[in-house]
Amino acid sequence: MVKQLRYGMVGGDLKAFIGEVHRKAINFDTRAKLVAGCFSADEKLGVETAEAYNVDPSRTYKDYKEMAEKESQREDKIDFVSICTPNFLHYQIAKEFLLHDINVVCEKPLCFTQEEAVELEKIAKERNLVFAITYTYTGYTMVKVAKEMIEKGKIGKIVSINVEYVQDWLVSSLDPKNQKATTLSVWRSDPKYSGISNCIGDIGTHAENLVHYLTGFEIKRLIATTDTYGMALDLNSNMIIEYDSGVRAALWCSQVALGHYNGLVIRVFGDKGAIEWNQEYPDYLHYTPVDGATQVMIRGSAVSKQYDAGNLSRLPVGHPEGLTIAFANIYRNVITTILKKKNGEALTKADLDFQNVSNGVDGVKFIHKAVESAKKGTWVEY
Amino acid sequence: MVKQLRYGMVGGDLKAFIGEVHRKAINFDTRAKLVAGCFSADEKLGVETAEAYNVDPSRTYKDYKEMAEKESQREDKIDFVSICTPNFLHYQIAKEFLLHDINVVCEKPLCFTQEEAVELEKIAKERNLVFAITYTYTGYTMVKVAKEMIEKGKIGKIVSINVEYVQDWLVSSLDPKNQKATTLSVWRSDPKYSGISNCIGDIGTHAENLVHYLTGFEIKRLIATTDTYGMALDLNSNMIIEYDSGVRAALWCSQVALGHYNGLVIRVFGDKGAIEWNQEYPDYLHYTPVDGATQVMIRGSAVSKQYDAGNLSRLPVGHPEGLTIAFANIYRNVITTILKKKNGEALTKADLDFQNVSNGVDGVKFIHKAVESAKKGTWVEY
Amino acid sequence: MVKQLRYGMVGGDLKAFIGEVHRKAINFDTRAKLVAGCFSADEKLGVETAEAYNVDPSRTYKDYKEMAEKESQREDKIDFVSICTPNFLHYQIAKEFLLHDINVVCEKPLCFTQEEAVELEKIAKERNLVFAITYTYTGYTMVKVAKEMIEKGKIGKIVSINVEYVQDWLVSSLDPKNQKATTLSVWRSDPKYSGISNCIGDIGTHAENLVHYLTGFEIKRLIATTDTYGMALDLNSNMIIEYDSGVRAALWCSQVALGHYNGLVIRVFGDKGAIEWNQEYPDYLHYTPVDGATQVMIRGSAVSKQYDAGNLSRLPVGHPEGLTIAFANIYRNVITTILKKKNGEALTKADLDFQNVSNGVDGVKFIHKAVESAKKGTWVEY
Amino acid sequence: MVKQLRYGMVGGDLKAFIGEVHRKAINFDTRAKLVAGCFSADEKLGVETAEAYNVDPSRTYKDYKEMAEKESQREDKIDFVSICTPNFLHYQIAKEFLLHDINVVCEKPLCFTQEEAVELEKIAKERNLVFAITYTYTGYTMVKVAKEMIEKGKIGKIVSINVEYVQDWLVSSLDPKNQKATTLSVWRSDPKYSGISNCIGDIGTHAENLVHYLTGFEIKRLIATTDTYGMALDLNSNMIIEYDSGVRAALWCSQVALGHYNGLVIRVFGDKGAIEWNQEYPDYLHYTPVDGATQVMIRGSAVSKQYDAGNLSRLPVGHPEGLTIAFANIYRNVITTILKKKNGEALTKADLDFQNVSNGVDGVKFIHKAVESAKKGTWVEY
Repeated sequence: MVKQLRYGMVGGDLKAFIGEVHRKAINFDTRAKLVAGCFSADEKLGVETAEAYNVDPSRTYKDYKEMAEKESQREDKIDFVSICTPNFLHYQIAKEFLLHDINVVCEKPLCFTQEEAVELEKIAKERNLVFAITYTYTGYTMVKVAKEMIEKGKIGKIVSINVEYVQDWLVSSLDPKNQKATTLSVWRSDPKYSGISNCIGDIGTHAENLVHYLTGFEIKRLIATTDTYGMALDLNSNMIIEYDSGVRAALWCSQVALGHYNGLVIRVFGDKGAIEWNQEYPDYLHYTPVDGATQVMIRGSAVSKQYDAGNLSRLPVGHPEGLTIAFANIYRNVITTILKKKNGEALTKADLDFQNVSNGVDGVKFIHKAVESAKKGTWVEY
Repeated sequence: MVKQLRYGMVGGDLKAFIGEVHRKAINFDTRAKLVAGCFSADEKLGVETAEAYNVDPSRTYKDYKEMAEKESQREDKIDFVSICTPNFLHYQIAKEFLLHDINVVCEKPLCFTQEEAVELEKIAKERNLVFAITYTYTGYTMVKVAKEMIEKGKIGKIVSINVEYVQDWLVSSLDPKNQKATTLSVWRSDPKYSGISNCIGDIGTHAENLVHYLTGFEIKRLIATTDTYGMALDLNSNMIIEYDSGVRAALWCSQVALGHYNGLVIRVFGDKGAIEWNQEYPDYLHYTPVDGATQVMIRGSAVSKQYDAGNLSRLPVGHPEGLTIAFANIYRNVITTILKKKNGEALTKADLDFQNVSNGVDGVKFIHKAVESAKKGTWVEY
Repeated sequence: MVKQLRYGMVGGDLKAFIGEVHRKAINFDTRAKLVAGCFSADEKLGVETAEAYNVDPSRTYKDYKEMAEKESQREDKIDFVSICTPNFLHYQIAKEFLLHDINVVCEKPLCFTQEEAVELEKIAKERNLVFAITYTYTGYTMVKVAKEMIEKGKIGKIVSINVEYVQDWLVSSLDPKNQKATTLSVWRSDPKYSGISNCIGDIGTHAENLVHYLTGFEIKRLIATTDTYGMALDLNSNMIIEYDSGVRAALWCSQVALGHYNGLVIRVFGDKGAIEWNQEYPDYLHYTPVDGATQVMIRGSAVSKQYDAGNLSRLPVGHPEGLTIAFANIYRNVITTILKKKNGEALTKADLDFQNVSNGVDGVKFIHKAVESAKKGTWVEY
Repeated sequence: MVKQLRYGMVGGDLKAFIGEVHRKAINFDTRAKLVAGCFSADEKLGVETAEAYNVDPSRTYKDYKEMAEKESQREDKIDFVSICTPNFLHYQIAKEFLLHDINVVCEKPLCFTQEEAVELEKIAKERNLVFAITYTYTGYTMVKVAKEMIEKGKIGKIVSINVEYVQDWLVSSLDPKNQKATTLSVWRSDPKYSGISNCIGDIGTHAENLVHYLTGFEIKRLIATTDTYGMALDLNSNMIIEYDSGVRAALWCSQVALGHYNGLVIRVFGDKGAIEWNQEYPDYLHYTPVDGATQVMIRGSAVSKQYDAGNLSRLPVGHPEGLTIAFANIYRNVITTILKKKNGEALTKADLDFQNVSNGVDGVKFIHKAVESAKKGTWVEY
């Protein structure tokens, strides 16, 4: 029985933030080992990254195609690849590895166009490959508790949703004098690397994904505005989303909201209760039952452990877990799924509790619909 | 020189919440005395209310028309009337007193239709009468500090606004079994007494008014959705508002948002700073300058007193002021204005710092435009 | 049946903070009218204050003895006097009015010495007079709810208490260069006007009183340290208090705790639950039952109204009440008590829910014991 | 040049919380590899733990003495051992490894008696070995920022300190019916395994260590009370500590404070500013300068990065780090120190920023002095 996996990474050199988070998250449970990589277009930086992680030079590639090709031929080939490059490369890299029958974990957004997204989904399904999308925030324990509470009827029938994901790191690009420099230094600001959206594609999609994750709702139509403030792409967007259930959500995302850093806050209101969760205080879930006071549920407490999801937390109550563990929780499930498939074991619903290529397809569609609505100035049907 | 005013009240019997708040707020500064009233359609309750406030039986009226008529003929007539009835009576009562040359303070929303609103504005202007609308939240010291900070450039050029005013007191009316009873017991739920809107008319208008108060922005167009959940009128509404400055605001109001009680929260983001204020913690203003940490400015502190408005607070730092004082601040300015007019003194900008009939007109227009947009499903131009 | 009282005030000129709070608080319920006063040693300021409150010149006194004497002889004499002077005058003024059979409301601390305190208590009891001490914080609705919850066993057997009352307004007197000026301008810093303690006498006594109010515990012994930082009197004090129940409390008071304004925070822990209340957010009570999550109980909510005390609040849920209303709640009970006594009606426990001269005696004893312990460096028995 | 270390662990089987945290924290930076262990007195559990971490059976020991002996003879011997056993074994295990010239990382408290503590310190110094004590909370970035701010004079001269570390996990042992069972199941409750103190030894020592870490102050004397509520050891303790600087601190620790989970909160007040840090929200530091509003400094922000320590954080602003990373920060410095010593490189102050055996000695002394004071009922000099 296989107990540990091998994995490779594309992108994620030493200077990149998110690649390092992926590696530490995978490492957290020590069930997968980094053995191959194509870390950077900058060859020197690629080699340095490989060295820092003891990746054998023979498995340090300059080209992701070569990596897919060569890895697929090895007996001890990688079980999955993590793709941590800028957006514009996701499609071609993911496709290449899928076509070499290697499981994929990819950063969001999945790719640029809906056609590409659907194509990737199709290939992954045909070849029965695991294809996970790292919608980070679905990995937090208290998000999972919230999902279970909603499923178990603790808030009754949902009637209204409010979600926001706001940051301020691009506020300097509001100044026309800084805009050219921002576009050069921040790839998310440049359509070539980022696609049709900056803010919605980077963080708005997390917010929408979180609504779907918690409620299971599918979008029926939406209306959006985008603010570019003189840049090529959106830095701020307001939306009203109507779901198939008839419920409406307000969604706001921004990269110019001073005083907010990684402010993903979701509130779901039902006729029997309400829940609120804030990413900056991830161990706390606020729950208000219809006939009672607001309760501060804390991860690791007996109250949280009344729920199955509450029992999957890693540290005792009051000992903050943080983002790395949210990521580790996603990889826990991805790795368990791949291991069980290798070992011919049956998969449970809990194993499959990670966002997959279909969620990635939804994300790409959402970005396109929102940008389309903002351009047309009308509601856009799904 | 006149130092104290006489006032009358229409509505606001002993069982009504808001009439009592008005009386206590006026009483706070002891510069106006209640001497006349038409407190209730229920004669017994009206008399009881008059007795509780030592209003002379000869000036306790069964009919507001009689009150306007008789008071206007007295030498010691009332200097202003406070109208605290349900919405559907505002127009006729206000008009009656204006036509008898008596200053008016009226609860929001001003009236049912835009035509009525404009007519009241016209009469008040022609007769040079004071006509205040009690948009309560403009009375809080830290709201005034925020306004002054924005005027003085502390947040730079405004780029995005988010405002919500959410409550949960009508959550039981989500249940179809309760809806008939709610409509009978809550006049705001009944179009006859409330007009075309419940939630937007009751609290959404406060939220919009607060944006205008803080920024001076005028609405250019808006798109809204309303949720009635089976009731005749809206209980929840989401909007995106575009202002003449090009800035967009998300506005959300709700009476079914469990866990929220009187949750008016406004956030205004600029390119040099941001401010956030929450009505449930009214003595605190959060200010984030572009190059610094978020600051918790507290009413009464030296930091707040750097601003003129910060010096108008009533209690020392750390001693909570509360809603009654916000109301008292509104009446302070209204009474000063009426006194100065009586005494022939010049009015300052600070004296006139209360919402007037023109803001009332704006409020009625806002309600109508929002409801129209929700019906049409499109942006509605102003 | 008498429905309204007449009252007088000693101290509390227009420039004083606390006198104005007393007047507004009394005025809040319009059941007592200010008709006499000896407002200031500064004659001109005294007259101005009288004029501002429409107190008849014939009842505006230069001397409190004259006031007690003359008022006691009138048919329409004052029903009670409010004493709002600096500490050093409390004893003599209170005694004078008691000896003229006039009810007294006095600011804390009651007086300088335990002998004086006991003497005042004795006179009040012998003459069957109401003698209230304005321990402000016992007037807040959620403090009363907490008291009722404790009485009803919601936190079980109390095991530990932590209370602090910290401010920062005297931080500048840490600098030796400022100390002389502080002593001259702040009467609380000067033993002549303040007695043997500044910080403990001003705010520490509130903290201790609040423990007693909530729990009913009597002090058995205490150990204290005081910090004067070069001033004549304490600016900071730490204590451990042992109560007759065996329970210990940590008490900290300070006037040099930067970032704290009027920070009275009490936490009472039992074996079945815990409560926490913070004066700067007075409408909220945090309650943690032994088997559940922390609940945020808000004044005016259905949850709060499960308790009798919760039904005495003045404004709806979410509409902040503030300090003036806490004071008004104290006067509500004092005035009801005096009215009922005048009318020969029976008094309930709820009517008598205000701190009286016996609590004042306790307060003076506490100040003396704490200062004694700090001097001796040992536990001091009660 | 050596780039990676080998380490072993004593204690920390799969069922233990803290051993796992140590392993994940070491693993976070992948600069030390677990190669040996004596994980459990339960042989089967020991083997399972070894297997889970790929520790070679030949280096999985039943006896820590055998481990020290055999490891010390290998060429590829462990560079350090992490001791994660209950308190009563710390002394003997640490001594054994030191005498075999192996660096030690040990959980707090260091050992039972002051004599043992001093002996361990002496051996470590004589043999020039690294001996780290995992006072976890010194590892948090914002604690390090606070320390640096204090060193750089941002709060001026310190005048008062308040620290508490409160939990509620032993509240059930307040019930006499549960006390026997608690003593059997919770080793910290049993003097045999825990020493002379439960609560002070477990968490009070963290609180005191944090004061020392932030301020550099040494204790001059202290007075303490302890509450056992019928158990053999303390569950709650209040103290006043006087430092060599003349500054006093209130310290409160508890395991029966309902509603508190891992509530380590420290506030340090100076004449120019104040700082507050709460372990449950570790990424935030509240700073109040004497002339300004309270600032919410967040880890990863530009404001935090004005300080050297602020630049050592691992994740971007708004992405919560959590306890594992605090632990990883401690190990980062320990491992760097051992690596540099092996490589003959010079050590910086930053490298040595971890608590060492001398802090462990201080911790043991603190526990003894506090218990002594509580017994005697007097101040105890240091």
